[in-house]
Amino acid sequence: MRALVVANGQLTYQAQWPEPDLQLGEALIRLVLAGICSTDLEIVKGYTALQGVLGHEFVGVVTAVADPADQSWLTRRVVGEINLGCRHCAVCLNDGPHHCPHRTVLGIINRDGAFADYLALPVVNLHPVPDHVPDEAAVFTEPLAAALRILEQSSISPEERIAVIGPGRLGLLIGQVLAQTGGQVTLLGRSAQSLALPEQLGLRTGLAEAAADNSFDFVVEATGSAAGLAHALRLVRPLGRLVMKSTYADKEPVDLTKLVVGEITVIGSRCGPFATALGWLADRRIQTEPLIDGRYSLQDGLTAFAHAQRPGVRKILLTPNNE
Amino acid sequence: MRALVVANGQLTYQAQWPEPDLQLGEALIRLVLAGICSTDLEIVKGYTALQGVLGHEFVGVVTAVADPADQSWLTRRVVGEINLGCRHCAVCLNDGPHHCPHRTVLGIINRDGAFADYLALPVVNLHPVPDHVPDEAAVFTEPLAAALRILEQSSISPEERIAVIGPGRLGLLIGQVLAQTGGQVTLLGRSAQSLALPEQLGLRTGLAEAAADNSFDFVVEATGSAAGLAHALRLVRPLGRLVMKSTYADKEPVDLTKLVVGEITVIGSRCGPFATALGWLADRRIQTEPLIDGRYSLQDGLTAFAHAQRPGVRKILLTPNNE
Repeated sequence: MRALVVANGQLTYQAQWPEPDLQLGEALIRLVLAGICSTDLEIVKGYTALQGVLGHEFVGVVTAVADPADQSWLTRRVVGEINLGCRHCAVCLNDGPHHCPHRTVLGIINRDGAFADYLALPVVNLHPVPDHVPDEAAVFTEPLAAALRILEQSSISPEERIAVIGPGRLGLLIGQVLAQTGGQVTLLGRSAQSLALPEQLGLRTGLAEAAADNSFDFVVEATGSAAGLAHALRLVRPLGRLVMKSTYADKEPVDLTKLVVGEITVIGSRCGPFATALGWLADRRIQTEPLIDGRYSLQDGLTAFAHAQRPGVRKILLTPNNE
Repeated sequence: MRALVVANGQLTYQAQWPEPDLQLGEALIRLVLAGICSTDLEIVKGYTALQGVLGHEFVGVVTAVADPADQSWLTRRVVGEINLGCRHCAVCLNDGPHHCPHRTVLGIINRDGAFADYLALPVVNLHPVPDHVPDEAAVFTEPLAAALRILEQSSISPEERIAVIGPGRLGLLIGQVLAQTGGQVTLLGRSAQSLALPEQLGLRTGLAEAAADNSFDFVVEATGSAAGLAHALRLVRPLGRLVMKSTYADKEPVDLTKLVVGEITVIGSRCGPFATALGWLADRRIQTEPLIDGRYSLQDGLTAFAHAQRPGVRKILLTPNNE
């Protein structure tokens, strides 16, 4: 099959990559759409030691199952959770697979991902996509779930002044999710240009540099850079809360004095609830179409990555088996 | 009066420093004992822009009041809260003076402190010391309150595995406070030598380097260094909580990836409840005497600071008006 493969920090297109071997309990999924995420760009820069097929945002169709008992999954259109725990350790049994120390993660840690013609995932990781949710929306399930994770972790009251820093791929989903809580959400960016799309989506916007110190109760850092954390700490009020969404390969010194002196609570936030995300997409509570900036075939994957890396570009989709 | 004064990052002994001018609502306090804290050492290194008398841990006796209505305070032995808010802004009215953006802080921000013969504080900041609490215990009220702040911020269940990193001045108080919650508390240090005192206090101990990754549910970082934060992040389990107590002048890059990926909650923590701290001291719930490593007159203040800076040294006291 065709695949975009990372090896030794280099992304290459492979026309003859082996198809996944199905393990017990797994389904083979023919990919229809896959999304390029900032984490993918960071993995190519060395954020994880992945050697294999990149990609973890997808929608596809089940074409084979390893276990006859799973035959009802055949031909179904699905999205899939990306964490695979060992299912035996205390973490898996108490908290689920997301934090299992032995986990693999689709296209991120030790497991071939979605930028290919086929991928394999356990059927327990799959969620059927409701018929009226188009592929172009379903492919946003994983990042939308990550945005919804914030609501699982923190109760937010409607009086709170909320800022989302970083009007990018993930920030635009987070901004829309938090706006639905009834709170006063401002999406902050580095340039007026970066704010055009959030304004089009009906979100309040502002320049991060221009926002006053301590002017928000609840700040989400979604810039993908250490500079974003410094802004977030500056903007959150003493006793306020700061959600960190960005993972990145670069390490920069950040002054954490305000975290202690201002008694800020910082909440790390990663993967979220797929079923809720599909429900929100089915109810059209979130706009995803305006976030799509390009579609590329797998063969043009390197061009797609170059496009995704350009400043201000949001979602770039790959279209395996759909060209 | 005599005083230890910071100016342009230099600590000096001043034999002829002006006595404080009493403002409305303030009391003049003749100092009996004052404690040197790690924050004092950091201020001399440039952590705040203080120009004036250093020191914020003290016990003393009220010798004058500005307002006749406050005469009942005269001759009383007191400790005092260190934050002075403007009492007018929304932060003061909603959250109290601790986070007022216009606040002064005794011996830390824009207000002469306790390493002197006299200091001035509003009577609303004062707490009378119960008669049977000796000066040598009362002088620990401020740091003990800071340790108790952790219990105000976080409910801790007895099953949780708790680590306090840094068996220093503050860490030894935090370890004792958290041990009283019924939790399993381990005090972690860099050397076997640093663990002798916590063992003497009846605390479980361990070497930070030797502790396993992800082995604690609740970790308190009290080392006063960026290296401590890296250890704390390594030791806290995914979905665990990390309390940051250290403020320091140095800025070092710290890899915050685990904070996001492990969905750690980080809680900045500063000043705490004085009344509770005095109650705990009155009930002898906390051992303070073994933490005292030296006593010095104000004249010998620079020698006292040199002593406090030596590795492994805990509390150094100054003895104004008590020599």
